[in-house]
Parts: sequence; structure tokens; C-alpha cells
Amino acid sequence: MTLTIGVIGGGQLARMMIPAAIALGIEIRVLAEAEGAPASLAATAVGDYRDAETVVRFARDVDVVTFDHEHVPQSVLAALEDAGAIVRPGPAALLFAQDKLSMRERLDAAGIPVPEWARVSTPADLDDFVSAHGGRAVVKTATGGYDGKGVRVVASSADVADWFGDEPLLVEELVVFRRELAQLVARRPSGQIVAWPLVESVQRDGVCAEVIAPAPRSSGRLAEATESVARRIAELLDVTGVLAVELFETDDDRILVNELAMRPHNTGHWTIDGSTTSQFEQHVRATLDLPLGATDAHAGWAVMVNVLGGHPDGALVDSYPVTFADQPSVKVHNYGKDPRPGRKVGHVTATGDDLDDVVWRARAAAFLLGSEAVDRPTS
Amino acid sequence: MTLTIGVIGGGQLARMMIPAAIALGIEIRVLAEAEGAPASLAATAVGDYRDAETVVRFARDVDVVTFDHEHVPQSVLAALEDAGAIVRPGPAALLFAQDKLSMRERLDAAGIPVPEWARVSTPADLDDFVSAHGGRAVVKTATGGYDGKGVRVVASSADVADWFGDEPLLVEELVVFRRELAQLVARRPSGQIVAWPLVESVQRDGVCAEVIAPAPRSSGRLAEATESVARRIAELLDVTGVLAVELFETDDDRILVNELAMRPHNTGHWTIDGSTTSQFEQHVRATLDLPLGATDAHAGWAVMVNVLGGHPDGALVDSYPVTFADQPSVKVHNYGKDPRPGRKVGHVTATGDDLDDVVWRARAAAFLLGSEAVDRPTS
Repeated sequence: MTLTIGVIGGGQLARMMIPAAIALGIEIRVLAEAEGAPASLAATAVGDYRDAETVVRFARDVDVVTFDHEHVPQSVLAALEDAGAIVRPGPAALLFAQDKLSMRERLDAAGIPVPEWARVSTPADLDDFVSAHGGRAVVKTATGGYDGKGVRVVASSADVADWFGDEPLLVEELVVFRRELAQLVARRPSGQIVAWPLVESVQRDGVCAEVIAPAPRSSGRLAEATESVARRIAELLDVTGVLAVELFETDDDRILVNELAMRPHNTGHWTIDGSTTSQFEQHVRATLDLPLGATDAHAGWAVMVNVLGGHPDGALVDSYPVTFADQPSVKVHNYGKDPRPGRKVGHVTATGDDLDDVVWRARAAAFLLGSEAVDRPTS
Repeated sequence: MTLTIGVIGGGQLARMMIPAAIALGIEIRVLAEAEGAPASLAATAVGDYRDAETVVRFARDVDVVTFDHEHVPQSVLAALEDAGAIVRPGPAALLFAQDKLSMRERLDAAGIPVPEWARVSTPADLDDFVSAHGGRAVVKTATGGYDGKGVRVVASSADVADWFGDEPLLVEELVVFRRELAQLVARRPSGQIVAWPLVESVQRDGVCAEVIAPAPRSSGRLAEATESVARRIAELLDVTGVLAVELFETDDDRILVNELAMRPHNTGHWTIDGSTTSQFEQHVRATLDLPLGATDAHAGWAVMVNVLGGHPDGALVDSYPVTFADQPSVKVHNYGKDPRPGRKVGHVTATGDDLDDVVWRARAAAFLLGSEAVDRPTS
């Protein structure tokens, strides 16, 4: 008997599930958007994830369906379940990763700390919220946003005049935060939850640039609090697989939930090279309701740096001779994408017991690979 | 630009190169013997590796050719090079992994310590050698043997009467050894060599059952000596990629070279989960002449146990619920083969700083997965 997981979406997250599936002898099949997608090695189908017939046909021969992204419409998810497919995470859980208004409402109702927020449908409502919150606020489209898209800091409704339409918008207080954190957990359908260490994520232009695991100064109460919040959310929303909870640590020491993702997440890429069980293996285990793996770290610190853009004239592999020679202990992950400004084309991870050294090595490797997110590191 | 490696042979070694290639964004193509081979995910061709036309056609669209096994005939290797393919390791090096007589001769001539040996073509010559070496000896076919096949302990030529023919046989003294060791190194064509820690391998019925990394009591002079021997062999034979040197540690403290393999090797599987750079990633790097990666260990000890056979009535995955629940920190590798007595169907690796605990966890996981090579572990 071979267990088979079908992944909808052929991006780098699906790509990085493949090694985990190979190790465990689990077959992985991918429904990719196009030929040549990062996960093309396992792409057994190419088609539109918004088309119910395509997705249902893809799901017919797999044991469980999971996702590379959260953009599959609820109508398609419903069609999958109607056709008898096992979908993990399920549509009801995924809704909260797809619709930021539903997420805010649900977490708020459960008493989980979130920024102050409101649902606004008119410019007047938005301006009222902005006035009541110091003249600035963050407006988000409820659906469709990621990596900083669909998010604007506004001083008045005029700044998002083009966004008012049929769908209400989410407006939130502009949180003054000390730093951004992420707490990853994994949950299997029968209830087991495991947590990785709390991490700090450094964003540039709304995109994750760097992740430090564990988050500095996070032992004790802070890590306990974030793990407890993530566990509560996983249970509350009946999440299956990896749940990433992005958090603000405010200047006045509060922890507020920013965003949720119900899939392996950029803030967990360090686990491939830094943890006994990677987020990708854990997601594979969880979707099959297998017992979850240990989440111990290999070393005191792991630092992941995204490779954004890349050298404009060449492929990432052209930089391997100098990168590998300079940084023999840094792990390089290349998503097989063409370089393009701002595009996540890969990431690197360094581990070790001296944080300054680990940060330096990871940044040096990302710099040598042509990442535009990294200034030339100086020692 | 995408770099492409072609691997001849679709077994578990080719299979385990795939995750390393995925991480580095390197395309891997496999010429498998049959459909459904362990490396079938990357099998772009199915055919006979003894057929020059098949192999040359396969090699046409790859940047470099390497191997899952050492059975490709020299005539086929010559045809590959004639057709302009880059073959790593090259035919001249591979000869010494294919032909044990050539290997013994070459190492002996270079002053590398090997068991006493002779080339014998007649029963009388063999009986002379046996008489001169205490009445017992080991006879090996020069070519075609692996995992204990083609090896017999004899008291007289009558025990291998069926082996005398056109080809001379290798006869060796029956080495009284304390234990078996393996030293793995990797070498790139431009000369860089890196070594992993010396390991101890425990054989059962001529098949590797368990590997302990590093070998207990191997610090200092022993590890220095074995690394030096392996480096000398890699240079002497112009090896590219991973070189595994299997060694005897004799009761009188000598180190003798037993066998060579020029590919990732069972005694290096622990590096996937226990070392900064796995032997598979290193082999990928080396075949492309890229700088080699660091070989540091994640923990004080890593123990690999082969899963031989498996539960007769079921697939390995049927044992996952109990295995994963019992041993959440053990890494499981399933080669996607049907269970069969004596067959290597997978392996497990545990890491940690307490050797007894690490051995126990690895054996427990292998036992739960149905390995016939493991007695029920008792704590």
C-alpha cells in the first residue's frame, strides 16, 4: 500500500514537501498552475485550482488533499468534499486563513489578543476609525492578500478609495511594535499538537526577509504565551497540518495576532536544516493523521535569510562556486525560479551556537547568491 | 540555466540523491532498471545499463553522468566517454570499485595496508594459500559481488569449486578483526577532499545492519589514520564523488582496507539526518565540481539501523502509527520497496549525546518497522 498526498498548487511550499514525502515513502502528487512550476518534479497535473472539475479530477486518486497556498475558493473546497475527498486543513478551517475579517471576528470572540479592528464598508466608517485611532490605520482587503499585497497604511479613506466595492474591508489600528514574531505549531486531526520554538521574523517592504530561531529574549513567559495562543487557535479553528501564527510584540509588551497561515510558512523554513522534524515533514504526517515528530533544534540558533530577486543576469547556480566556497556550512535552497526583482527565488539557513556568527554566515550566503534583501555583510 | 545530473540506476541511492538535488535546484534524471524503482520519481528513462546505446542516449541531455551502483560495464563507460559525456567517477576510477583484484593490486603497490591476498586461477594455488594462512581463507569473485554475495570463507578449494572458470579469483587471509569501520570522504575533480567522521559498521550475514557515527573510541590517532588512508586512496585512484573505504580494525590494532565503493554508501546514510552536508548532497556537489559542504555532526552520536525485510504482511507505512508515536525523534527512510526477507527496504537514524539512548531509539524504531535485523530492544 502506498499513501498518496495531493497538493494543490505547485510553488516552493509544495516543492519542499517532496523531500519529506520521499523520505517517508509517501507518494506526492501536485496540481500545478503551469509547466515548470517549482514543484514540477511531482506535478502529475497542470490546471486551474479555481476550477472545481479540474480539482475534483486531480483529487480522485489521492488519499488526502492539502495545499501549497490558501487561494482555493470555498466553492471548490465544497465540491471536493462533496466528491468524497479528504481535505486537510478542511474548508471551515481554511476560511480563517482566506478571510481576514472572519479570522479577526473569530479570534476576537474567543478572547485571543488581536489589534483593534473594524469591518468597514464605507469611506465614512473608515474615516471614523482612523480619527479614533490617532489619524493612521492599516486597511486590508479581507481576501486575496499575501506578502504585503492587499495591505495599506492610510491616513484617510482617500488612500484606499479604489478598494471600496462589494466587499467590506478590514481596518486595524497601526500597531507600534517592537518586533514581529511567528509561532508555528502542527496539529493532526485526532488532536495532537506540537510546537516549534517561537521565532522572530524581520520584514522588508511587507515581505519576510530573515527569521531567527529561537526569537532572541524569548525564553520563559513570552514563548509560553505564544505557544499557548497558537495551540488555542489550532484547536479553536480545527486546523490540520502546520499553522503559522504571525504576531506583533508591542512596545508595551503585549502579544497581538497579526496573520494566520494554514500550511508550511516562510517563518518555518529554518526547520528543514535546524529541527529534528521539518515543517514539511510535519505537514505530511499531519495530513495523514500520523503521530507528529519531535521539534528539537539541532543547534542553539538557526537563521534563515530569503533570497529575493537574485543576480539579474544569471541563474542562482551561477553563484554556487563562490557561495559554497565562502560558506561551506550554509544550506542553500533554490526554488528553481527565474530571477526577478522582489521574487522569492530561494532561501539559506545557517545554524550554530553563536548568534552573531550564524546571522553573518546566512547573510553572507544570501548576499553572494544575489539577494536584494541583504546588504553586504560586514564582520 | 539548469544543471542536470544523470544517474544510472534507480535504487535507493539514486532515490536519496533527489532531495539533495531539489534543495539545490539541480535537475536529476534517472535511468532506472524497471518501472516502480525506488528512484522512480525522477526516472526519465527505463532501460538496461549494460546496453551502450540505451546509456548513451540517456546521457545526451545531462551535464554529468553518475551512478547508483558500480555495475555499469567498462565497455559502456567507454562508449559514454566516446560520445562526449562527462562521467564521474570516471571509468578508470570505477574499475577499482568493480574489480577487487585490480583494487588489491593497486592499493598494495601504493603501500596502503590491505589483508594478505593472492590472485588464484587454479584449485592448487588456492589450496597453497589456504595452507599458508592457517587453513582458512576468504575467496571473492573479482567482479559482481556486493552485500556478501560473491564472498565465501573456505577451508579448501573444494568450497568454491563452482567458481573456478575463466576469471581468476581473489583469495585473502581471514582477518581476525575487532570490528569493521568505514571512512567516507568526498572529492571533487579539481581536487578538494572532505571527510566525515570515521564510523563503525556492524554486519550481519555480510550485510550492514547498523552504523555508529563516530566510531566509539576513534578519536585521535585512529581517526587520523583512516582519514589519511581514505584521502590517499581518493587521490591515488582519482575518485570523484563519495568514496567509502570499508576497513577492518584487527585485534592487533592494524587498519586494513577491505572494500571500496565510489558512490554514496550505506555506512553514510546517517549523514542525511546527522551531518551538515549529507553524502548525497556532497555527491551532487562533487559530480558538478562545486565546492564541498561542511561535514560537522549535529550531535555527539548518530546511529543508523537498516530496515531489512519488513513485516511480511504489510507495507512499511502500516507500522508508522506505532513507530512514530513510540519514537518521535527517529528519522525514518522508506525506499518504497515491497517487503521481502533480507531486502533493505529502508533505514532509520537517531541522533543525540547519550550513545546508549541513541542506539536504543534507533533499534526500537527499526524493530517496530519490522526489521528482521533487530532483536526486540530491551532497555
